[in-house]
Amino acid sequence: MSNEPGAPTAPMAPLDPSIRAVLSNLSTASITMALLKSGLRNVWIRGARSIEPDYPRVVGRAFTLRFVPAREDLATPESLSSARSTRGAMDVIPEGCIAVADAMGITDAGIFGDILCARMKYRGAAALVTDGAVRDLDGVRKTGLPTWCNGVAAPPSVTGLTFVGWQEPIGCGGVAIFPDDVIVLDADGAVVIPNSLVDQVVKTAPHAEVFEAWVLQRVEEGRKLMGLYPPSDETIEEFQAWQRERS
Amino acid sequence: MSNEPGAPTAPMAPLDPSIRAVLSNLSTASITMALLKSGLRNVWIRGARSIEPDYPRVVGRAFTLRFVPAREDLATPESLSSARSTRGAMDVIPEGCIAVADAMGITDAGIFGDILCARMKYRGAAALVTDGAVRDLDGVRKTGLPTWCNGVAAPPSVTGLTFVGWQEPIGCGGVAIFPDDVIVLDADGAVVIPNSLVDQVVKTAPHAEVFEAWVLQRVEEGRKLMGLYPPSDETIEEFQAWQRERS
Amino acid sequence: MSNEPGAPTAPMAPLDPSIRAVLSNLSTASITMALLKSGLRNVWIRGARSIEPDYPRVVGRAFTLRFVPAREDLATPESLSSARSTRGAMDVIPEGCIAVADAMGITDAGIFGDILCARMKYRGAAALVTDGAVRDLDGVRKTGLPTWCNGVAAPPSVTGLTFVGWQEPIGCGGVAIFPDDVIVLDADGAVVIPNSLVDQVVKTAPHAEVFEAWVLQRVEEGRKLMGLYPPSDETIEEFQAWQRERS
Amino acid sequence: MSNEPGAPTAPMAPLDPSIRAVLSNLSTASITMALLKSGLRNVWIRGARSIEPDYPRVVGRAFTLRFVPAREDLATPESLSSARSTRGAMDVIPEGCIAVADAMGITDAGIFGDILCARMKYRGAAALVTDGAVRDLDGVRKTGLPTWCNGVAAPPSVTGLTFVGWQEPIGCGGVAIFPDDVIVLDADGAVVIPNSLVDQVVKTAPHAEVFEAWVLQRVEEGRKLMGLYPPSDETIEEFQAWQRERS
Amino acid sequence: MSNEPGAPTAPMAPLDPSIRAVLSNLSTASITMALLKSGLRNVWIRGARSIEPDYPRVVGRAFTLRFVPAREDLATPESLSSARSTRGAMDVIPEGCIAVADAMGITDAGIFGDILCARMKYRGAAALVTDGAVRDLDGVRKTGLPTWCNGVAAPPSVTGLTFVGWQEPIGCGGVAIFPDDVIVLDADGAVVIPNSLVDQVVKTAPHAEVFEAWVLQRVEEGRKLMGLYPPSDETIEEFQAWQRERS
Amino acid sequence: MSNEPGAPTAPMAPLDPSIRAVLSNLSTASITMALLKSGLRNVWIRGARSIEPDYPRVVGRAFTLRFVPAREDLATPESLSSARSTRGAMDVIPEGCIAVADAMGITDAGIFGDILCARMKYRGAAALVTDGAVRDLDGVRKTGLPTWCNGVAAPPSVTGLTFVGWQEPIGCGGVAIFPDDVIVLDADGAVVIPNSLVDQVVKTAPHAEVFEAWVLQRVEEGRKLMGLYPPSDETIEEFQAWQRERS
Repeated sequence: MSNEPGAPTAPMAPLDPSIRAVLSNLSTASITMALLKSGLRNVWIRGARSIEPDYPRVVGRAFTLRFVPAREDLATPESLSSARSTRGAMDVIPEGCIAVADAMGITDAGIFGDILCARMKYRGAAALVTDGAVRDLDGVRKTGLPTWCNGVAAPPSVTGLTFVGWQEPIGCGGVAIFPDDVIVLDADGAVVIPNSLVDQVVKTAPHAEVFEAWVLQRVEEGRKLMGLYPPSDETIEEFQAWQRERS
Repeated sequence: MSNEPGAPTAPMAPLDPSIRAVLSNLSTASITMALLKSGLRNVWIRGARSIEPDYPRVVGRAFTLRFVPAREDLATPESLSSARSTRGAMDVIPEGCIAVADAMGITDAGIFGDILCARMKYRGAAALVTDGAVRDLDGVRKTGLPTWCNGVAAPPSVTGLTFVGWQEPIGCGGVAIFPDDVIVLDADGAVVIPNSLVDQVVKTAPHAEVFEAWVLQRVEEGRKLMGLYPPSDETIEEFQAWQRERS
Repeated sequence: MSNEPGAPTAPMAPLDPSIRAVLSNLSTASITMALLKSGLRNVWIRGARSIEPDYPRVVGRAFTLRFVPAREDLATPESLSSARSTRGAMDVIPEGCIAVADAMGITDAGIFGDILCARMKYRGAAALVTDGAVRDLDGVRKTGLPTWCNGVAAPPSVTGLTFVGWQEPIGCGGVAIFPDDVIVLDADGAVVIPNSLVDQVVKTAPHAEVFEAWVLQRVEEGRKLMGLYPPSDETIEEFQAWQRERS
Repeated sequence: MSNEPGAPTAPMAPLDPSIRAVLSNLSTASITMALLKSGLRNVWIRGARSIEPDYPRVVGRAFTLRFVPAREDLATPESLSSARSTRGAMDVIPEGCIAVADAMGITDAGIFGDILCARMKYRGAAALVTDGAVRDLDGVRKTGLPTWCNGVAAPPSVTGLTFVGWQEPIGCGGVAIFPDDVIVLDADGAVVIPNSLVDQVVKTAPHAEVFEAWVLQRVEEGRKLMGLYPPSDETIEEFQAWQRERS
Repeated sequence: MSNEPGAPTAPMAPLDPSIRAVLSNLSTASITMALLKSGLRNVWIRGARSIEPDYPRVVGRAFTLRFVPAREDLATPESLSSARSTRGAMDVIPEGCIAVADAMGITDAGIFGDILCARMKYRGAAALVTDGAVRDLDGVRKTGLPTWCNGVAAPPSVTGLTFVGWQEPIGCGGVAIFPDDVIVLDADGAVVIPNSLVDQVVKTAPHAEVFEAWVLQRVEEGRKLMGLYPPSDETIEEFQAWQRERS
Repeated sequence: MSNEPGAPTAPMAPLDPSIRAVLSNLSTASITMALLKSGLRNVWIRGARSIEPDYPRVVGRAFTLRFVPAREDLATPESLSSARSTRGAMDVIPEGCIAVADAMGITDAGIFGDILCARMKYRGAAALVTDGAVRDLDGVRKTGLPTWCNGVAAPPSVTGLTFVGWQEPIGCGGVAIFPDDVIVLDADGAVVIPNSLVDQVVKTAPHAEVFEAWVLQRVEEGRKLMGLYPPSDETIEEFQAWQRERS
């Protein structure tokens, strides 16, 4: 496994700029709808909310972090300074990625505070997502690292959690996340796009968003929903005509 | 039942303007106290919070919406466009009512997004209340529909919920709501006033609010609470004298 | 017991001004870390969040309040006006203390509204903390009493809770609180410092905060975490040199 | 709606005896596997366990019952004796059906005791399933009505629940149940087979059970699982040969 | 307070033998129904189940025990051997009472094991009830002390709980219990009868049980529920005639 | 990592027979007490209960299994037959070990049924422990594999879970388990003894059990607990005298 002490972490495939551009303009609501059409119902990370009200949307590959529960014999000074520690992970986190931490939904200990977030920010991480809590909220805010979490808690991670590794498959907020999956974050929370489905989402979701924007205008003009959304054949024709006119 | 496909929804009795005026000036805290005096302890919808910090109080009759859990065979395109769909409900929702949606407390799928909220807004619905989540928070905000909900979630309703009807008795946030009950919404959340108790609340609660405002002034002047609140006979006399002077 | 009807409450030992000064400059994150080093893992009150975003840190001794569940035969007018009532407690609450209310995590009834908070404010209470909810949020805000709670709920306390006494040992948010323990409140929530450990926290935590601030600067300059935090012997030397230079 | 006071309940289509015979020999584990192959993941009623350890498997159509939360103004003597009451439902429940009660997972009030269960038993109901509790466990046992529930509670239903109707779509244990769906009960709990999928389950599941029994024998003989289960092409051939020999 | 170290516990009023005799023949289901008629809805201790399937009904006055959460500085050898310890409480527990322990619903530590249960048994305690867990299940069973609890857990109480006193008002399973209230235990769990309502329950509930037994017979003969239960005037007359004949 | 497809699993150090002998005579209650004295409070696996009432105590090294949540794209036939599957794990599970499965507390899908349990039994596994559910309860019972789990559920694991590996650190029931830790199972549930603490438990716990047995006898003779348990100096002397006599 690549996260053995001393071993280099497998390089993360960079996210194609054109894919990033499309995803940055898609809401997580649109992405979950596109994934549902591909049969995926469980892609939204329960409990992860942004700590600032007005972050722009964030897109990046997942760099996974995994915790298990605390056991007093594991929370030793040696473990904190071992290579298999959060420190070790932060020192190799790749630029542009989104750190996704499986805290098993534990919210009475903060997984990271200002120092670890500052280190991630320095290395160019795009954001932090967790189903757990962060600590030292004011300090984390000051680092400028966009953060989606399930609360804030003063106690250090070792009161509730033991770090065990990175870039492993994890569960986060009831969702399976694999290393290098694509994560998108906005005001509706955090969603995962499995690597194999990124192309499909990029292809279909923007079209659906255009259609929904057109529907919204019709609704604001007073149109009934029945026949409009989901669209009847007539509605589809009408939309296509509108599109042709527009182009 | 009035919500059969094609059937008209039973007209909703308009809320008397004088009643609306009184209730618009009563806090939900005062209303729950008045209902407790009538023996009702379970009238506050657990989990429903406003998505904007500064809505004015909203008052209206309940237009109930009911969901059951999702089952993959039910979430078909046909079901979404059938007359017994959320779309069908939104197309008949009466002006001035408050849509109250029983989402069984499920918060990992959004019951409505911008399009359905825009439709409700267009038809003149006064607000939306649910023990579930909404999706596309930014879009919902833009519609201007006052919304009290139990969170925000990107996934569409069909990932977790199946719509089954409207204007039926429902549970919402652990409270029974019947069609046409009166709902009041403010910073303390959402409360239901059963139709048969509206007159009593309107009669007794404003007086209690005046008394409590008088008590608050006394407290700010340094009076002890014992004997003041709840009031001793002397306090009642003192209050009544104050009232007589004032009128 | 000191809270028998008519009996005076035992006087609360004033908090030494120098201790107060130190604690006012320590984050709850630093305090929990210091307590962990003394073997205490369970000192953060789960669920207690501030109702305003920008309170300054609050420090004070705990004045405990205890509720048990509601039982209809106990919620009588007599009980509300008895000496063993919340009113009785509010009338003796000492200046500078922090009221800590054990509401057993019940969040569908508000323990206090504007009148009781105004009384606490008048008597000089420094803050209110609870694992339950408050009611009449707008009114509570107007009193100016800094409040950390687990939500807001319109219904009065008697719909869910019965008050049974004050200055007894309590549980609050899963933490044991004894009368006169020291409480510190900030953006990360509420923590208790057991009386016997206050001196130790005051002695060790400020030093740790200085070190962490120094670490943060190093991280912002691009230093690796391994060897820095937790510090290797070289790092400790480097920090001590920096301190000597600075003094 | 058919359950208006005085109106006859729509007759329930009898369950074909050959279908009943097949389902009585299929475990709920096999049925959920067959439904998963048809894309259904959410068909097992959470929380419903049998009150006796050794009931034989029960199969029948669902007769749905729906509760909403209790509200003190609704729990009147009039409501209990109205036609839209549990009593009304019990008096029309069809022979051979399985009563499925949506209690919203509330387990601190018992939905039925001995009298209502005795009435169901007398009318020939095959079983009772609920995500709530029953009361008077000893009495319910004596009626002989097979019962799957989520606990036992002494208090009467009206302390927590209000009955609102029957043969409506419901949620039970997080699963959608429609009137006349087929229910199967055994030691693994309660599953629903949507009406439209009964034929498919009956066709495919028995074959899968034969295969699994054959696999189990191989495992007991010491065969490795890899290649055996799920089967490789060679394993499929081997199984088919075994089947040919046997027939 | 009477449970100060060294102070004698206030003597518990013995339960009148005639009251005990009546209550021993009333099911907890009947008692909760009687209390509901007196306006009490919250008298059943959530989570408390018997550890043996076939205890006879137990009746006794409540001897309350109170825990708060564990804090490492409180779980010292000194605290365990102090007079305000579970040991101190067990040494004064009165004959015939039922120990009711408020464990705040914590079920991952056992409040008592065989030694403390043996001590209670020796002193003649009638039973133990808690919303927490016991430990050393086999040992507890051997003591013969009838026990209703919310599970079994190996860890000692101090891993999760701190004992703080006895014969104080407590919450147990979401219900308020005051010292000397009457507790009844059977297969449906544990209910509290407030002291002031014992006479009323004893007077009304037996009559209701006779009526319900008569109703059950009618149901077994095939009578409809409508008009029978709740009874119409004709049914009441018929029942009274049956009673007259019988006497 | 040793559990890569095709790679051999690292051999598990056999458990010393003398250690096994001592642990087989120690209750999990005694073990948790011994571990608490070493500072470990979190060693009992929440939710794991035995499916049969009368298993003898089981002792063995942990063979860990790890699941993450289900995602529809992962639950493919290919994944089930891949080397990194539950099948792959079952085919290498060592004799005498206890399989400990991290199911993240998910109890609405069964992790294993009869076939996988039969395979484990055939290979000589001593028991299965999980914080999740098993399926096909009757079939699992027939395999004779002692099983401690958090319920029974009909649906197959893939409806809720994705298997990701074995012999990795896991969380199970809120406890950290590392490969080769020692597990002990009895009527009080499942506890882990970290490898580094096994010797200490084996050395101290038996002595404590002898003392407690002696205390229990004294309690049955009517001795007070104060001074006896925890013991005063006199009690310790008395016990030591008793031991000397006995030997």
